[in-house]
Amino acid sequence: MAGSVHTDDSDSERAARKPSDGQRPEELPFVHKVSVPPSTPLHSGIKDTIKETFFPDDPFLQFKNQTKGRKFVLAILYVFPILEWGPKYRLNLFKRDFVSGLTIASLCIPQAMAYAKLAHLPPEYGLYSDVIPPFVYAVLGSSRHIVVGPVAVVSILLGTLLNAEVNYKKDLATYLQLTFTATFFAGLIQAGLGFLRLGFIIDFLSHAAVVGFMAGAAITIGLQQLKGLFGITNFTTKTDIVSVLKSVFSNTHQWNWQTILIGLFFLVLLLAAKFISKRKKSWFWISAIAPLTAVILSTAFVKITRVDRHGVITVKHINKGLNPSSAHLIHFSGDLALKGVKVGIVAGLVALTEAIAVARTFAALKDYHIDGNKEMIALGSMNMIGSLSSSYVTTGSFSRSAVNYNSGCKTAISNVVMAVVVMIVLRFLTPLFFYTPNCILASIIITAVLSLIDLKAAKLIWKIDKSDFLACMGAFFGVVFVSVEIGLLVAVCISMAKILLHVTRPHTAVLGNIPGTTVYRNVQQYPEAYKIPGTLLVRVDAAVYFSNSNYIRERVLRYVNEEEEVIKKANGTSLQYVILDLTPVMSIDTTGIHAFEELLKILRKRGLQLAIANPGSDVMEKLHIAKFLEELGEEWVFLTVGQAVQVCTRLLKSADV
Amino acid sequence: MAGSVHTDDSDSERAARKPSDGQRPEELPFVHKVSVPPSTPLHSGIKDTIKETFFPDDPFLQFKNQTKGRKFVLAILYVFPILEWGPKYRLNLFKRDFVSGLTIASLCIPQAMAYAKLAHLPPEYGLYSDVIPPFVYAVLGSSRHIVVGPVAVVSILLGTLLNAEVNYKKDLATYLQLTFTATFFAGLIQAGLGFLRLGFIIDFLSHAAVVGFMAGAAITIGLQQLKGLFGITNFTTKTDIVSVLKSVFSNTHQWNWQTILIGLFFLVLLLAAKFISKRKKSWFWISAIAPLTAVILSTAFVKITRVDRHGVITVKHINKGLNPSSAHLIHFSGDLALKGVKVGIVAGLVALTEAIAVARTFAALKDYHIDGNKEMIALGSMNMIGSLSSSYVTTGSFSRSAVNYNSGCKTAISNVVMAVVVMIVLRFLTPLFFYTPNCILASIIITAVLSLIDLKAAKLIWKIDKSDFLACMGAFFGVVFVSVEIGLLVAVCISMAKILLHVTRPHTAVLGNIPGTTVYRNVQQYPEAYKIPGTLLVRVDAAVYFSNSNYIRERVLRYVNEEEEVIKKANGTSLQYVILDLTPVMSIDTTGIHAFEELLKILRKRGLQLAIANPGSDVMEKLHIAKFLEELGEEWVFLTVGQAVQVCTRLLKSADV
Repeated sequence: MAGSVHTDDSDSERAARKPSDGQRPEELPFVHKVSVPPSTPLHSGIKDTIKETFFPDDPFLQFKNQTKGRKFVLAILYVFPILEWGPKYRLNLFKRDFVSGLTIASLCIPQAMAYAKLAHLPPEYGLYSDVIPPFVYAVLGSSRHIVVGPVAVVSILLGTLLNAEVNYKKDLATYLQLTFTATFFAGLIQAGLGFLRLGFIIDFLSHAAVVGFMAGAAITIGLQQLKGLFGITNFTTKTDIVSVLKSVFSNTHQWNWQTILIGLFFLVLLLAAKFISKRKKSWFWISAIAPLTAVILSTAFVKITRVDRHGVITVKHINKGLNPSSAHLIHFSGDLALKGVKVGIVAGLVALTEAIAVARTFAALKDYHIDGNKEMIALGSMNMIGSLSSSYVTTGSFSRSAVNYNSGCKTAISNVVMAVVVMIVLRFLTPLFFYTPNCILASIIITAVLSLIDLKAAKLIWKIDKSDFLACMGAFFGVVFVSVEIGLLVAVCISMAKILLHVTRPHTAVLGNIPGTTVYRNVQQYPEAYKIPGTLLVRVDAAVYFSNSNYIRERVLRYVNEEEEVIKKANGTSLQYVILDLTPVMSIDTTGIHAFEELLKILRKRGLQLAIANPGSDVMEKLHIAKFLEELGEEWVFLTVGQAVQVCTRLLKSADV
Repeated sequence: MAGSVHTDDSDSERAARKPSDGQRPEELPFVHKVSVPPSTPLHSGIKDTIKETFFPDDPFLQFKNQTKGRKFVLAILYVFPILEWGPKYRLNLFKRDFVSGLTIASLCIPQAMAYAKLAHLPPEYGLYSDVIPPFVYAVLGSSRHIVVGPVAVVSILLGTLLNAEVNYKKDLATYLQLTFTATFFAGLIQAGLGFLRLGFIIDFLSHAAVVGFMAGAAITIGLQQLKGLFGITNFTTKTDIVSVLKSVFSNTHQWNWQTILIGLFFLVLLLAAKFISKRKKSWFWISAIAPLTAVILSTAFVKITRVDRHGVITVKHINKGLNPSSAHLIHFSGDLALKGVKVGIVAGLVALTEAIAVARTFAALKDYHIDGNKEMIALGSMNMIGSLSSSYVTTGSFSRSAVNYNSGCKTAISNVVMAVVVMIVLRFLTPLFFYTPNCILASIIITAVLSLIDLKAAKLIWKIDKSDFLACMGAFFGVVFVSVEIGLLVAVCISMAKILLHVTRPHTAVLGNIPGTTVYRNVQQYPEAYKIPGTLLVRVDAAVYFSNSNYIRERVLRYVNEEEEVIKKANGTSLQYVILDLTPVMSIDTTGIHAFEELLKILRKRGLQLAIANPGSDVMEKLHIAKFLEELGEEWVFLTVGQAVQVCTRLLKSADV
């Protein structure tokens, strides 16, 4: 076919010949040399690594070439974004923020009370959590669309974790202490990760695992609402689907038909509102105000009919007044502090994952930049300060942020408006909720968590990557059939296993020449690519590290065995050269070099010559230091696979002659 | 310079044009197309993954195309390698094995007694451990040079771990039960890992970490010997250097000058023997027989002078007789079984690491193949059977295997010879050790563990890779200053952190054209490579996964920012095209595709066109399913960077006109 191309002298790579290049031992003067780079000084190497690891987004770029005074101003602006946009804030912006603030307030008030129940807290604590955090976020945060406050998944996770340490029914006082301790440490960990620029650790939870976890949490939370929806008083404390359904159907004598009727009626209404809102973008406000409307209507209904005397359970008394201080409840040492740290780490990280995802989504929509680490400091500070004022773990809410975005918010001031509304409610209006039936809160939660089930994403994951789908389903079933924290553990473990598998079993490919070109490609992907007689071309598609070097050595040897068998059968030119394309091998460690040395030794014993093509500078330097290049012979290092093939083919021919 | 090369029509890549190729929208007909591969069926994808993950070395290759009967025979031969080489075994081979068997026996007897002390066991248990395991290994193992038995590092690790659970001084009976339970489970885990073909998990301990860990363990073990060498009776149970040195120098009143004199005298002799042996390869036997000679001489000396009456502590009574059964001591349920599993996992894995390293080293020297997983089954069975007959965790010993190799052993029969000698000693000769001074055993251990300190390797690691050196030192100081298990933990953690860092922060490079060629290379490595005006070429050097996709997106955007700044300063052609070279990107997951979509969106908003070059088949398929190709436009997918540059440059030119 095009068997002559790779030895074609008019090949463009021949142009690389320079008269000044040293003659190679084989007297093939047309090959561009790969030189060993000058070794980088230790400190600059360390500096580069630190920069790429902790500051890949280069947050200090703006500080470059500035005067000291300007640097100080920039630093202050960096820490407090409000100082940047605050002075430019105008009335027309406020109008938009005011409207969206009111909208999200009407949504957040019933949600906050409902979510507090998921965390086994009295309803007012949900409202408290919507007061201080929005103010803190408005000062420190850089997302313009996020709405902070309690969210469903974090609430149920926190409730499960806390209740495993202290029973909320038996000892609410200690439970509250643990809650605020955990909230404080969750904030500390969030801010700490951001400050130390370790925010990338949340990237270790894969998208697929998060999709599964969220859907599982939604189902679990929804199932928990059957208690309120059916008016059951004795309910299981477990959250797995089996226990919950058993609890529901073994307590049919506790079902209250009035509760069920009211609950289902409003559930249908809420779902309808949600459905209608989805039809047209400008109708978003229908589902936004539906919850509060449902609360008002159902409360009025109960107040008038007094069905609460017939078993419909209502919210009853909510403590009136603004957030009390909770600083004295936080433990900084002792057993409770330890438990708080334990719970705080898990809840804090899950909260972070959600908040960063929300912030990134809306930042991408409006094309502004979110510094993940800075955002973590903002969220962490918000939780630390919140924990001093009776607020439990808060984060960015996906559903409320979407409403905020759709209702045209401009800055974080919409959060402040929402917080002020909540404060007014807390100060004056809590008695109004006395007759609010619990089943309404259940209906509101069910409607809210439905959006956490992302069937479309799951389907796409299935189509794109089966192993991702496994992670997704693992997390989902873990949450649904065992518990929220087990599901989370499964999600993390599968994600980790995937990473580890990926680094132990890197991809490799046998290359062939694409006819009529000097291009060498994977013969499996390009069936037209053909192998060069007498040579085997293998590309290694990963950095060679201790975790994969044994595999790579074995894999290359297996390719050699397979190739030799094929040649034996076809009675072709016997194998003489093995060329490793190291283009993708960006780094190598001592174990990797050992593996190469062993490979060289074994190939030599079998009478095969090894050649390497296009090693990166780091690899080249290390192979040089380890004397591998000396052992291999520097004439067997080539700039491209094409050049290596040229030399080998030429040698094969001259051997034939 | 060679600025015209990349648009040169005589470029070899133009030859790829085929008349049948569909015309591209830009009417640039000379570009070879990257086609979307047909999707692989699910089951074959899963099959491939399983094969690469668990059977990368293709152990079933030999079973292919064989009759059923032959397959059965091959399977039996596979499980019992002795059946393969046994029938070919001849007297001349046995002669060599006999000599090396005697040599390693003379080495192992004093070592076994000494190592048992490290594990806080009576000396006879060390000898017991040299009886059954060699027989089992000879039947199942495939290494011809390894010598199995107790080793120093595993002994001290086991001693530390076991003593943390049960105090050996207070309750030796329970301690023994736990020892054999842990040994059994260590074997079960080793065999289980091999059977499930999960042997690759030992690859997660990096070479550098092992070098540091071994050196640290050697220092720790050496320090422990100061007790025996100085004749101290009250010694700390801690193993860190500070506690041990304090214990030595605060108990100077316990120092016994006769002990010190004998110990130091023989220590110098042993070290001299070792030193001489190293000078010439054929003198290996000097250091091999030195320990036993030292034992005999010192025992005779004590017996004659009766210095044991003046405080020289001797071995005293050793139980005479062959291994007693210990099957009844093993717990399979309850608290002790749990503790046994815990200790067994750690000791078993460390033992495996050492054995596989030894087996691989000598297999590479003599060019035969070691199937790691099969070897694990052999080692595991050896420990399980050993645990039934009073043997504690055994593995391959580096120093004794080297002696075995040098003394010309041919098969595992040398292990059997050694075991028979040990049996004779146990049956008849234990009383001879009554007067053997403990300080001799200490000297023997110190001499033996010195070879675990591999300064040359540490130096090479420092030269090659500073982060590897950090792992090495972390493990070393962890062992020396805290404890053996903490050092091990540090080693594992640093190794893992390195992997995780590597997958979160993959390498990327800006490419430039090497003058006179169509080759594009990293501009940092090849300073002569120059950038193409108006385009930015970025190569991503890793699979794009959830753990790194955010970073990659940020990194590419940072390159764009940097490039635009440079252009602004130089007043050059403004940037219009960003070409991603995806050659090394062998795989992508859903999070990775999201990142690409975001990147595309952001670049578009900035008026930049994205193009991708040489995506692999897997990536191509997934980008197609996720509709990314549709979004990007298939005309922006190129076979090579060169072709992408050609198209972009042409478009830039036509825009100029």
